[in-house]
Amino acid sequence: MARAVELAGRGHGTTSPNPVVGCVVLDAGGAVAGEGFHVYAGGPHAEVVALAQAGERARGGTAYVTLEPCDHTGRTGPCSRALLDAGIARVVVAVADPSPKAAGGAARLRATGVAVTMGVLTGAAERVNEEWLTYARLGRSHATWKFAATLDGRSAAQDGTSQWITSPEARADVHRWRAGSDAIVAGIGTVLSDDPRLTARPAVDTGLNTGLNTGLNTGPDTGPDTGLNIGPDTGSADVRAPLRVVIDTEARTPPGARVLDDDAPTLIAIAEDVTTDLKADLLRLPRHDGGGLDLHALLRELAAREVVSVFLEGGPTLAGAFIRQGLADRVIAYLAPALLGSGRAALGAAGVETIGRMHRLTFDEISPIGPDVRLIARPIAQPGREQ
Amino acid sequence: MARAVELAGRGHGTTSPNPVVGCVVLDAGGAVAGEGFHVYAGGPHAEVVALAQAGERARGGTAYVTLEPCDHTGRTGPCSRALLDAGIARVVVAVADPSPKAAGGAARLRATGVAVTMGVLTGAAERVNEEWLTYARLGRSHATWKFAATLDGRSAAQDGTSQWITSPEARADVHRWRAGSDAIVAGIGTVLSDDPRLTARPAVDTGLNTGLNTGLNTGPDTGPDTGLNIGPDTGSADVRAPLRVVIDTEARTPPGARVLDDDAPTLIAIAEDVTTDLKADLLRLPRHDGGGLDLHALLRELAAREVVSVFLEGGPTLAGAFIRQGLADRVIAYLAPALLGSGRAALGAAGVETIGRMHRLTFDEISPIGPDVRLIARPIAQPGREQ
Repeated sequence: MARAVELAGRGHGTTSPNPVVGCVVLDAGGAVAGEGFHVYAGGPHAEVVALAQAGERARGGTAYVTLEPCDHTGRTGPCSRALLDAGIARVVVAVADPSPKAAGGAARLRATGVAVTMGVLTGAAERVNEEWLTYARLGRSHATWKFAATLDGRSAAQDGTSQWITSPEARADVHRWRAGSDAIVAGIGTVLSDDPRLTARPAVDTGLNTGLNTGLNTGPDTGPDTGLNIGPDTGSADVRAPLRVVIDTEARTPPGARVLDDDAPTLIAIAEDVTTDLKADLLRLPRHDGGGLDLHALLRELAAREVVSVFLEGGPTLAGAFIRQGLADRVIAYLAPALLGSGRAALGAAGVETIGRMHRLTFDEISPIGPDVRLIARPIAQPGREQ
Repeated sequence: MARAVELAGRGHGTTSPNPVVGCVVLDAGGAVAGEGFHVYAGGPHAEVVALAQAGERARGGTAYVTLEPCDHTGRTGPCSRALLDAGIARVVVAVADPSPKAAGGAARLRATGVAVTMGVLTGAAERVNEEWLTYARLGRSHATWKFAATLDGRSAAQDGTSQWITSPEARADVHRWRAGSDAIVAGIGTVLSDDPRLTARPAVDTGLNTGLNTGLNTGPDTGPDTGLNIGPDTGSADVRAPLRVVIDTEARTPPGARVLDDDAPTLIAIAEDVTTDLKADLLRLPRHDGGGLDLHALLRELAAREVVSVFLEGGPTLAGAFIRQGLADRVIAYLAPALLGSGRAALGAAGVETIGRMHRLTFDEISPIGPDVRLIARPIAQPGREQ
């Protein structure tokens, strides 16, 4: 199953709005007969790829799958049927499918005499698929807040200068995360001060997303050691440019802002009570406590548009709003070995007055990136917190 | 030599005001015949311990020493003579001795026909001995600034509460560093607000200081694998309680402050122009630019009192003053996986207005400590900076 989880991770950044899934098929004798992972929505599922490789060797064999095989016909047929047709005798599943339309695969397989084991290596399989599971379970996009700062938590000097605190290596790493996200979100403050494009640079190599989000630090490309062709040609993947989203409560985006260029689609999220003649794709949202936008509503609306994952690029105010509303599912901090002692703090007001109400996280990964360090953390559920 | 450096590191925290030194003696055939490290001032030097173990096997052999053997008689005789008397044929040295009174060992050895090689594994040997080398070369104490903060660089919440941001594991680690320092320095702000004792808790085990400052992360105690007795019984070491130093420019320390209790000696550093009737050991210093104390003068005065290393426990203001005056030789950050978004910043004004003047460091170590992360960094020399 560990291998299946590793395979699943290779699909990162290209499968949306589908989950990442990995599958390993063993023959009746327990030898690896096929491997596969899901590469892009509309492409073959992991089980189908692995079964195709295994061919007749699948008969009487075992399939390890990171996510419960689907039981519905979407752009491809149900995997439950493919496993039955291949004569698989046993299916081992890490995580049950939470989506109503695709679930039921395990029940279907059991009903036809296949032995099904659920819950194997669940933690790692949840981790590798965390964006999609958040999306499927909570009906909202998964949000990652990234920031770059000095060791003392400053993102800009006193005079506002900030280029560059972190290294080219760290900035390249940020672009890989961006490129693997469905949407890039910034606040109007960032748009007005920096006029960013919010586009992901083109991929430099096809190993681009490997190792992202897996917590495994597998490096650029560990490669299949089986020599098997484990996925379709990634050159055929239909990778979407990330949607650009501006949190612009009062509709202040200038008509000539770079985020409104043609490089990628853009959504301007404004308060539903604001009138504007801005020519842009507008998303009207309620306010949160009468102030800024209700970010939970934003993430639900984005999920309805099949945005599984969003990447927050905004400044300290936007970050504070997401943290305060309990909506930063992952925090990625790039810390440079440097000290400022004054200037803009990485995080703005996040609704904490006293230490007992501090937002607590847990570190998933601590990695050197060039001369800097990257820390990936996730919130710990805290009683009484807004979620 | 790597083994000699490792041995040297075991002396950390007990050798002051002497350097840490490690020595490995090979016999004429190249087999390890003796190992030793310097444990405490007044105790035998590393070379003497290693030679005693080697006995007659030292004749015609090679000694690897992390620091140039001394050529003077202090509380013990010169090591240059001990090496000659033992019949050593070759001496390999990592770092030349910068202190005028002890230097000259290499020259003495060469003059009597011993082959001497200098500069082997110098980087690691400099690192393991960095406090003492700073002290010997610059004539001032080496300063380590430690801070504990959230991932966004806050050391207290908005209402001033700060217990506890970091974990018990991180706090225990701080106490190990404290115990290995010659002096603990705090600002008057910390004394007035927290009334701390500034004492190091008693050592829990004798492996206490192992792994500190070496950059090697060797863990609690890797132990000698030779079975040789490589140092005198550490139970006999005369370890001093760290001196407590309060930076109190205007002499505001209350007579009943805990730092003035009898648990350890205390020095109150005040401006030379201030009059006070405070009953305490006072150190009068000039002001820096007419404001706070000249910290360079402080560290020179402390060095004159054989204080090799100081540990800065003060708040953001004191830290900012040390950073601004270019006197923080090492920075240790304990970052908790937590976010505050407001409250006291870890570092106060450090004289930086624009990004080009940012204080740049380099990470030496990045280590998880319980649920937190510890980052150890050192300044990079920057042209035009006050040093």
